Amino acid sequence: MNAGKPVQVSVIGAGSCGEELEKIAERIGELLAEKGCIIVNGGRGGVMEAVSRGASRKGGIVVGVLPDRSEGNPYLTVRLKTNLGHARNVIIAQSGDVVIAVGGSYGTISEMAIALKEGKKVVAVKPPVVLKGVTIAETAEEAVEKALNTLKALLEKGENC
Amino acid sequence: MNAGKPVQVSVIGAGSCGEELEKIAERIGELLAEKGCIIVNGGRGGVMEAVSRGASRKGGIVVGVLPDRSEGNPYLTVRLKTNLGHARNVIIAQSGDVVIAVGGSYGTISEMAIALKEGKKVVAVKPPVVLKGVTIAETAEEAVEKALNTLKALLEKGENC
Amino acid sequence: MNAGKPVQVSVIGAGSCGEELEKIAERIGELLAEKGCIIVNGGRGGVMEAVSRGASRKGGIVVGVLPDRSEGNPYLTVRLKTNLGHARNVIIAQSGDVVIAVGGSYGTISEMAIALKEGKKVVAVKPPVVLKGVTIAETAEEAVEKALNTLKALLEKGENC
Amino acid sequence: MNAGKPVQVSVIGAGSCGEELEKIAERIGELLAEKGCIIVNGGRGGVMEAVSRGASRKGGIVVGVLPDRSEGNPYLTVRLKTNLGHARNVIIAQSGDVVIAVGGSYGTISEMAIALKEGKKVVAVKPPVVLKGVTIAETAEEAVEKALNTLKALLEKGENC
Repeated sequence: MNAGKPVQVSVIGAGSCGEELEKIAERIGELLAEKGCIIVNGGRGGVMEAVSRGASRKGGIVVGVLPDRSEGNPYLTVRLKTNLGHARNVIIAQSGDVVIAVGGSYGTISEMAIALKEGKKVVAVKPPVVLKGVTIAETAEEAVEKALNTLKALLEKGENC
Repeated sequence: MNAGKPVQVSVIGAGSCGEELEKIAERIGELLAEKGCIIVNGGRGGVMEAVSRGASRKGGIVVGVLPDRSEGNPYLTVRLKTNLGHARNVIIAQSGDVVIAVGGSYGTISEMAIALKEGKKVVAVKPPVVLKGVTIAETAEEAVEKALNTLKALLEKGENC
Repeated sequence: MNAGKPVQVSVIGAGSCGEELEKIAERIGELLAEKGCIIVNGGRGGVMEAVSRGASRKGGIVVGVLPDRSEGNPYLTVRLKTNLGHARNVIIAQSGDVVIAVGGSYGTISEMAIALKEGKKVVAVKPPVVLKGVTIAETAEEAVEKALNTLKALLEKGENC
Repeated sequence: MNAGKPVQVSVIGAGSCGEELEKIAERIGELLAEKGCIIVNGGRGGVMEAVSRGASRKGGIVVGVLPDRSEGNPYLTVRLKTNLGHARNVIIAQSGDVVIAVGGSYGTISEMAIALKEGKKVVAVKPPVVLKGVTIAETAEEAVEKALNTLKALLEKGENC
């Protein structure tokens, strides 16, 4: 984390999901944007699009780390066209100061595993499997609070988020 | 898989492990090499080195997909110097016609998750967590048998392994 | 390019450079930020830091696609910690709607080559070698003008940059 | 390079090429395989297929570092399914103890540039552009001789190639 700079939060989850997870992801996007955080995600549909839409509505910066050369969902501020397929998951896991997972499947598991290997805090809402070290949250509010609390010591030195 | 070509088996696991897992990995390497399979792994120590040593003893081809620019363990036939860090896990998971995991931790979980996402069969001995779709094996012999059985239909068309 | 969204310009060049190139890069950063463009670069020193500093002064968004897990130079808005080494060059080359090169050496050549392979326009100030298809510019102003002119048809549909 | 281990030679060039370059590439494959070298290439058509065919005829090991998940050309011993697109170029450039280029275009230029940045010797037959530091060769025999001569000091410690 970079003191004095906006916190980066990676928000991960499946490319297609039910309405309940979509609402949670969208609310997480709103909350993080309101706090001045930058959101890093996979740039596509489902949870990725929902969190982007929420953040975009509140004027937040959303960085889509795309697996291909597409433009991604319409709510991205920045589009990184990696064309690296699943290897882009690693960039997302490594680039967040903290990681929030919403639902998800194998791709999300791979991202949580890499984030944990890198010593990052991972907060998960309805995860597909509970990996050792992951913090569970039930709501968008709880997920954002738990995620940002882990950065508190660092945040106290910084200006925002 | 490529009919008529040697089967490629990705063998994954932690970079440092106890003696028991090392013995299992080494035996898996011997068995796969005896059957003419090519082994793809992460090229470093622990399970990676043990499986390489076993395969090397039986004259097998071992491909180390290294995370850095190092030469890797001394039993590799081919050294791929990716310098991609954890993103090299994705190459390993994708390059096996089937995947065998021995023990492991977060890195191994990320590889199993990507392999499963790609629709590959994953056989695991003492996995750190049981992901949906993984087949459990207790011994080296059982792991190799279960892994190669899943390729049987395809293998019948081929010449070896 | 994404109609209605800010144009993304990749600015590439060496990690250490003389004062003349630094001034050109800094001015390019200012000009692009004034026009509302998002800058994608390698996030480190030399040309990368100069263009980031210029853009930052004018309130622009600067995305550093870092080769490691470092925080990069102090002028980045977004830090992508790829840990992919030289492979991050490919992400930079692919993510710009247009590419501007300032000086540089082998790394910059690799990025220009990938951008050209992808059919992108590349404008270069004092390039280390003139690859077929590259447009030469002498000043920061000329580089930015030539780069954005190539996007004109697309830009006319968009709102800014 | 790994003393006592086979030398790895990366052979790069365009995915489609004329008959003359194809013959040169095929002969390079034969010569390298006869000397016990392992060939690393991009696994597809054109120069990549020709060098693979030549090496395969002489019983050499050919490692195809594929940009996608395909099986690549029929002459590969090992197929690495990176699905990394152009980023796989970097793996090829880094994995050869020395690099031989045959013809080629932008992709080949990107690989030569990365190899040179890594301090590797690059020998090129009919290159699309002459980068500083590249050694030119006119024939397959000259290319292989010049490439392996650069490794001589290291090779003297080793057993083959």
